[in-house]
Amino acid sequence: MKLLIVGGVAGGASAAARARRLDEQAQIILFERGPDVSFANCGMPYYIGPEITDRQKLLIVTPERLHERFNIEVRTQSSVEAIDRAAKSIRVRDLRSGREYVETYDKLILSPGAAPIRPPLPGLELPGIFTLRNLQDMDQIRAAVDAKPHAAVVIGGGFIGLELVENLRKRNVPTTVVELQNQLLPPFDAEMTTPIAQEITAQGATLILGDSAEGFVPHVSGVEVRLKSGRSLPAGLVVLGVGVRPESRLAVEAGLEVGPRGGIRVDDHLRTSDPDIFAVGDAIEIKDFVTGEPAQVPLAGPANRQGRIAADNACGRDSSYRGTQGTAIVGVFQRSAALTGAAEKTLRRSGRPYHKIYIHPANHAGYYPGAQGMTLKVLFEPQSGKLLGAQGVGGAGVDKRIDVLAMAIQAGMTVFDLEEAELAYAPQFGSAKDPVNMVGFVGAGLLRGDHPQIAVDDFLAQAEQSGGTSQALLLDVRTPQEFAQGHIPSAQNIPIDVLRGRLDELPRDRQIIAYCQVGMRGYLATRILRQSGFDVVNLSGGYKTYELFRPRALNQS
Amino acid sequence: MKLLIVGGVAGGASAAARARRLDEQAQIILFERGPDVSFANCGMPYYIGPEITDRQKLLIVTPERLHERFNIEVRTQSSVEAIDRAAKSIRVRDLRSGREYVETYDKLILSPGAAPIRPPLPGLELPGIFTLRNLQDMDQIRAAVDAKPHAAVVIGGGFIGLELVENLRKRNVPTTVVELQNQLLPPFDAEMTTPIAQEITAQGATLILGDSAEGFVPHVSGVEVRLKSGRSLPAGLVVLGVGVRPESRLAVEAGLEVGPRGGIRVDDHLRTSDPDIFAVGDAIEIKDFVTGEPAQVPLAGPANRQGRIAADNACGRDSSYRGTQGTAIVGVFQRSAALTGAAEKTLRRSGRPYHKIYIHPANHAGYYPGAQGMTLKVLFEPQSGKLLGAQGVGGAGVDKRIDVLAMAIQAGMTVFDLEEAELAYAPQFGSAKDPVNMVGFVGAGLLRGDHPQIAVDDFLAQAEQSGGTSQALLLDVRTPQEFAQGHIPSAQNIPIDVLRGRLDELPRDRQIIAYCQVGMRGYLATRILRQSGFDVVNLSGGYKTYELFRPRALNQS
Repeated sequence: MKLLIVGGVAGGASAAARARRLDEQAQIILFERGPDVSFANCGMPYYIGPEITDRQKLLIVTPERLHERFNIEVRTQSSVEAIDRAAKSIRVRDLRSGREYVETYDKLILSPGAAPIRPPLPGLELPGIFTLRNLQDMDQIRAAVDAKPHAAVVIGGGFIGLELVENLRKRNVPTTVVELQNQLLPPFDAEMTTPIAQEITAQGATLILGDSAEGFVPHVSGVEVRLKSGRSLPAGLVVLGVGVRPESRLAVEAGLEVGPRGGIRVDDHLRTSDPDIFAVGDAIEIKDFVTGEPAQVPLAGPANRQGRIAADNACGRDSSYRGTQGTAIVGVFQRSAALTGAAEKTLRRSGRPYHKIYIHPANHAGYYPGAQGMTLKVLFEPQSGKLLGAQGVGGAGVDKRIDVLAMAIQAGMTVFDLEEAELAYAPQFGSAKDPVNMVGFVGAGLLRGDHPQIAVDDFLAQAEQSGGTSQALLLDVRTPQEFAQGHIPSAQNIPIDVLRGRLDELPRDRQIIAYCQVGMRGYLATRILRQSGFDVVNLSGGYKTYELFRPRALNQS
Repeated sequence: MKLLIVGGVAGGASAAARARRLDEQAQIILFERGPDVSFANCGMPYYIGPEITDRQKLLIVTPERLHERFNIEVRTQSSVEAIDRAAKSIRVRDLRSGREYVETYDKLILSPGAAPIRPPLPGLELPGIFTLRNLQDMDQIRAAVDAKPHAAVVIGGGFIGLELVENLRKRNVPTTVVELQNQLLPPFDAEMTTPIAQEITAQGATLILGDSAEGFVPHVSGVEVRLKSGRSLPAGLVVLGVGVRPESRLAVEAGLEVGPRGGIRVDDHLRTSDPDIFAVGDAIEIKDFVTGEPAQVPLAGPANRQGRIAADNACGRDSSYRGTQGTAIVGVFQRSAALTGAAEKTLRRSGRPYHKIYIHPANHAGYYPGAQGMTLKVLFEPQSGKLLGAQGVGGAGVDKRIDVLAMAIQAGMTVFDLEEAELAYAPQFGSAKDPVNMVGFVGAGLLRGDHPQIAVDDFLAQAEQSGGTSQALLLDVRTPQEFAQGHIPSAQNIPIDVLRGRLDELPRDRQIIAYCQVGMRGYLATRILRQSGFDVVNLSGGYKTYELFRPRALNQS
């Protein structure tokens, strides 16, 4: 068996090693356009910053290692120019010599990856404007940082953009991030990114949302970024992080099927429309595990697993890919944001019914020093309670809860199952009622009718419809001190501990929306009032959730 | 509805609050023998040590708060002496006045907890000998530590014992821990506790395994602990942490069914043999979620959930408890050990067939600074691959992986599912192939026959049977440098990268056991050799696992 693999990073290198383990006799040749294979592309922002100091560490597996250990022939600086499907061969160009040659295959695995989008803007070719895809890009950006630029502009507030902002700030470069959308981290629902926006600005970066670059002109300090809004930002260094586009040219030219957004079409065995050609990684169109819809999700974990599965099938096994859940995380200074499964915006777009809840737990027992807060948002099916998606933002421990919820989504579990989850508790690590249990309690309470809730955005929409103030009575059950420090306009304050004695102050002819800081006291208020005959719901996640939708700084302006 | 609750800590306080949320009209009275309700017993060792400085923080909910917020009548220092099931009443003794009175109930929830075992040893009543159950015990122990004892002895190397050792060492008290068994942390399989034993001694504590206290005599420094072995240990402070016994006297005297080890028998609705009496927490016998066998598992998380469920049923709902998975964690200085589901010893005892694997991954990408190692042991069913149990020991990130695996066990997932788990990856948080995926790869490889493995203890048993050295050829595929730093006796060294060229040095007439440091290169060697016709297996988890069974210090003696 002669197996050719195009692309030597995550998916391609995984496929090559897996194929060798399955078939000691196969001839395996790996082609890579760049000089490196299997490098740690997720680590690159941290080498531009101060965290990773040894560049060698980013070379996870060298061509020599792949050859010695796995008997894989690696041809770097070799660009695969064309596939001749009829002849089962590829045409390769050696970028050093310029020589072209043909290599035949029995099976072919494509792992060409995705290229950073370079929008066709005037001045894009000016020095000082970079994208970040490989170690050579990284070296250039790092050199630009070493030259102590007076300012940097990162265009695009996605995962890589924010990792760059963190690392540029840690190298003391004044940094502005410009994002086209009105939120950072577009895969997340907007309100969940509020703490990240606050963290970015608290760490001294400038944040411009809802704006984009129109062009670049030379400037005494390097380059000037012209924004659509009319603003202009002079910078010694500009990095474009506005997304990636599948490198599917080779596949398209070979007549392989490609999806509407350019991803190579594969079946659940990762086979393309040609049965001898497989494709993996950022270049393919995958099935969204939750919605079942086609999607493009450029992530390292799925790419690695796809490489294994494609190799299995290329070697004659029967191995299938369950789809991509889209579990991802980004660290931003002392905070992190993670998600898994479907976002609310995705569910809304596809018209799928859902419930959502918010909680604001601490990562571990409050009585043990160093507890850090987080916000979890969880989406689930209305009747069954089946989990559809989860997002977390906060300090330590967000990664753990999203991983646990990712497992629950994979298993098809419900909010009722989360009530019963038994997670490891000691005061440094969690709580006797873990945040995951709390998700279960709040979600199951909603479904059982014990704990009727209204989402903050639904409340805000209702209030807007009725001219700015809610028809319902807004009941703040926090202490007078908390109330004085900030509350939702028009709210009435009756602290939970005196509520039972003041029921006669409340209306029986209209709805009451109770709220507290995070939702716990609001829940108890809801229980008390419902059992006394009031029409009451709890504002899910309380004032803290309100502040995600209406951040204080914006509130005051 | 009049609901009485006996015991005001985890299970009782949870039951009371839940009952109030369900029934605003119920009369709820909570009886607690001590002065405090709902205190953080898991935090007590850290107040004896330096971590928690504010005692107030351990009082999670005060009697006043329960009254104000939940309209629950709390009677502390009130000992419930007897239950009259026919009359549906209890006899209560007010410990302040000595007065006794009768209180009737509609429903009764028992949450009496478990008491530290005080073995009947001579001298047990001497001053300076403590157990740790409540805040008063904690205060006494802390006062003894404040008096700067020249030495402390902790009898019992379980969870609380080791938490005490850590905190005593952090207060600079020379500390010895004495454990009856030949391992620390008896719920774990012995080999998994090796790193904890090493950590304890590295932090300056003295460890005595396989020995126990026979008695205590007065000593100039306080008290002298006499051990069965003949050793004696003078100490200013002795803490007994040799386990707990369910406080089931009240239930027994009332004629309620009790299990062989003293736990109150309940059905899956947590109802005792009397339909109006429920029981929760450390005092009850639960069903082990994995084995289905009755067990006693004193843990805070399950106690809290049981409290909710008992309250549900007492209030007329239909709510059931799925059994206890036994998920638990202990922090020991910079390391932690966690487990969920069945231990190997449990499966062996019940004759249930299982496979086991070991891996030694890092908590996050190796190229990002600060990666810490861990060992995971995972048990699963032979054909289906269904997960039965998991244990982890190491630095950061053990808690996360055990929580993810706990979720997988709850869901009935298999090692095949773990291959496909999609967990959050960024270099600070994990790896593109997370440790959980690695468990899947290694376990599924075993079941598919791609990756035949032998466990270290099976290998050792085989070697012992054949007179100390294995019949099989032991093949060390690490580098000569690694081999020189320590290897399994009689092993032959052929590094993986030259193995393909030296196959003629290997025997075709007997089994080969390949091993490397953690199992990865041994796996590749197994693949190479099997496909060349050799009879070969990989030593699961490699030399690192060997060192768990044969720690270096013991090795050298």
